[in-house]
Amino acid sequence: QWTTLDWKPKRPDMLIDPFGIGRIVQDGLAFRQNFSIRSYEIGADRTASIETVMNHLQETALNHVRSAGMLGDGFGSTPEMFKKNLIWVVTRMQVEVDRYPTWGDVVQVDTWVSASGKNCMRRDWVIRDSKTGEILTRASSIWVMMNKVTRRLSKIPEEVRGEIEPYFMNSEPVVAEDSRKLVKLDDSSAKYVRKGLTPRWSDLDVNQHVNNVKYIGWILESAPLPILESHELSSVTLEYRRECGRDSVLQSLTAVSDHGAGNSMNLGEMECQHLLRLEDGSEVLRGRTRWRAKKPESSGDVAQIPPESA
Amino acid sequence: QWTTLDWKPKRPDMLIDPFGIGRIVQDGLAFRQNFSIRSYEIGADRTASIETVMNHLQETALNHVRSAGMLGDGFGSTPEMFKKNLIWVVTRMQVEVDRYPTWGDVVQVDTWVSASGKNCMRRDWVIRDSKTGEILTRASSIWVMMNKVTRRLSKIPEEVRGEIEPYFMNSEPVVAEDSRKLVKLDDSSAKYVRKGLTPRWSDLDVNQHVNNVKYIGWILESAPLPILESHELSSVTLEYRRECGRDSVLQSLTAVSDHGAGNSMNLGEMECQHLLRLEDGSEVLRGRTRWRAKKPESSGDVAQIPPESA
Repeated sequence: QWTTLDWKPKRPDMLIDPFGIGRIVQDGLAFRQNFSIRSYEIGADRTASIETVMNHLQETALNHVRSAGMLGDGFGSTPEMFKKNLIWVVTRMQVEVDRYPTWGDVVQVDTWVSASGKNCMRRDWVIRDSKTGEILTRASSIWVMMNKVTRRLSKIPEEVRGEIEPYFMNSEPVVAEDSRKLVKLDDSSAKYVRKGLTPRWSDLDVNQHVNNVKYIGWILESAPLPILESHELSSVTLEYRRECGRDSVLQSLTAVSDHGAGNSMNLGEMECQHLLRLEDGSEVLRGRTRWRAKKPESSGDVAQIPPESA
Repeated sequence: QWTTLDWKPKRPDMLIDPFGIGRIVQDGLAFRQNFSIRSYEIGADRTASIETVMNHLQETALNHVRSAGMLGDGFGSTPEMFKKNLIWVVTRMQVEVDRYPTWGDVVQVDTWVSASGKNCMRRDWVIRDSKTGEILTRASSIWVMMNKVTRRLSKIPEEVRGEIEPYFMNSEPVVAEDSRKLVKLDDSSAKYVRKGLTPRWSDLDVNQHVNNVKYIGWILESAPLPILESHELSSVTLEYRRECGRDSVLQSLTAVSDHGAGNSMNLGEMECQHLLRLEDGSEVLRGRTRWRAKKPESSGDVAQIPPESA
């Protein structure tokens, strides 16, 4: 079903840089970087938040491109893309989280790219516990090119294809494609609505656009608190439809579906549908999340002493 | 004026753990940790945000306590404090930033604690460019004890003093105390007001309180955009007065003062006064920020290729 990258370093020199910028592994096609989970990356559950997980995906994607020398502008474009004013934009993202790490844990992130149809690129990630090799998270994303002046999507020009194709791995997605259609919510179908959400200054990236990772935070703004308290996010599918700028005012809509075995909130799995839209109604992002009941020990004010440091 | 910690590692073994959890240096009294600045820690200016700087301060403070074996509950309390339900709360924080690092830079953070009066503790930090030793940031903070059940401030009990005193360094603050009173703003004195600010789920810490670092983000919510665009924060003084929980609704007030040489916004330094308050008017935090004009090359959409990775 999905590529198995051997998580154990094959050569001793791969151990030299365990917390640095990371390195190319697997015959030059995959990129690997370790992250030590910091205190400010964990949330009320004492585990890393989904934003943290997605930040690590973003960071390794950028460092992969940088390490491979494909960098034209410092932020993910190749030299030919830079010449043609093209940038990568993510249109679809699926993340499946088996377990969230906690403060002091070290995670190892592997990422690589593959072809996806004629005009897309797929990027996959596997996050492991660096001590045990246990897979914590798998993620898969689809990227297309956009002209950063006209903001229109573009085919992949031949010159760019020539630059990136040598980096493609011939592999299946690590997450089976969630082929169920993402529904379009509206005020009648969404029970939970949060209005007037605005980017904070710190949510903006170098282009004064809202960073992709921030959208998941806005989605959770309309998720009902009882779910956030009793459940943890096990998977998320996002379909990005429109950029947000610093003046955007957003509405976050959530509907809780009784998908699966018709469970009540406190038993087993929950599924939610989400929509982020601008005030004029135009869609920014559709999403679906799945949730599983938290394990009892991960909640409350119980003392949990992290592993002793060296 | 302030303690000079030799930034160069004195013994080769200090180089062993350059990106890990950090280590005790300086005869066991100071703690040192390196951070590689990640892509998601930089903002629209391509430099680390003030939140990132303050996150690194928080992380090293916690890891210092943890490494020193002073940890009773996993989050900064000593064993005696844990027995007595006491936690540390920060009442005052001063940060002076000379230069913000950028993506890929490695910063070295040193932190240590000192006595401050009979019932306070001072914690200082120095952040350096790990390559050159250049000082980027100095910060100083005052901490008191709070009973976490009654939420009342407490004297430092003798048993706790016995635990922490051996760790006190006999040093002057690294930042000269900002002794000017922080004014209390109100609707008539504050020109810029943002209302209805609420914590996001991800802003909450393990006690479901808003993490101290988040407050600076809310302060900046009411800072006028022209200042954020043309200036960078050079120093901040914060006086914490009340905790926020997940249901708090905040108002952020800012007044721009013509402090200094009566400069206009585009020339030289600016000073702002800030207040965060609850909707019932009770004060959460008073603050003062100073701003200096950005250097021209740090703005705009100019390509800046980060240093090549190994």
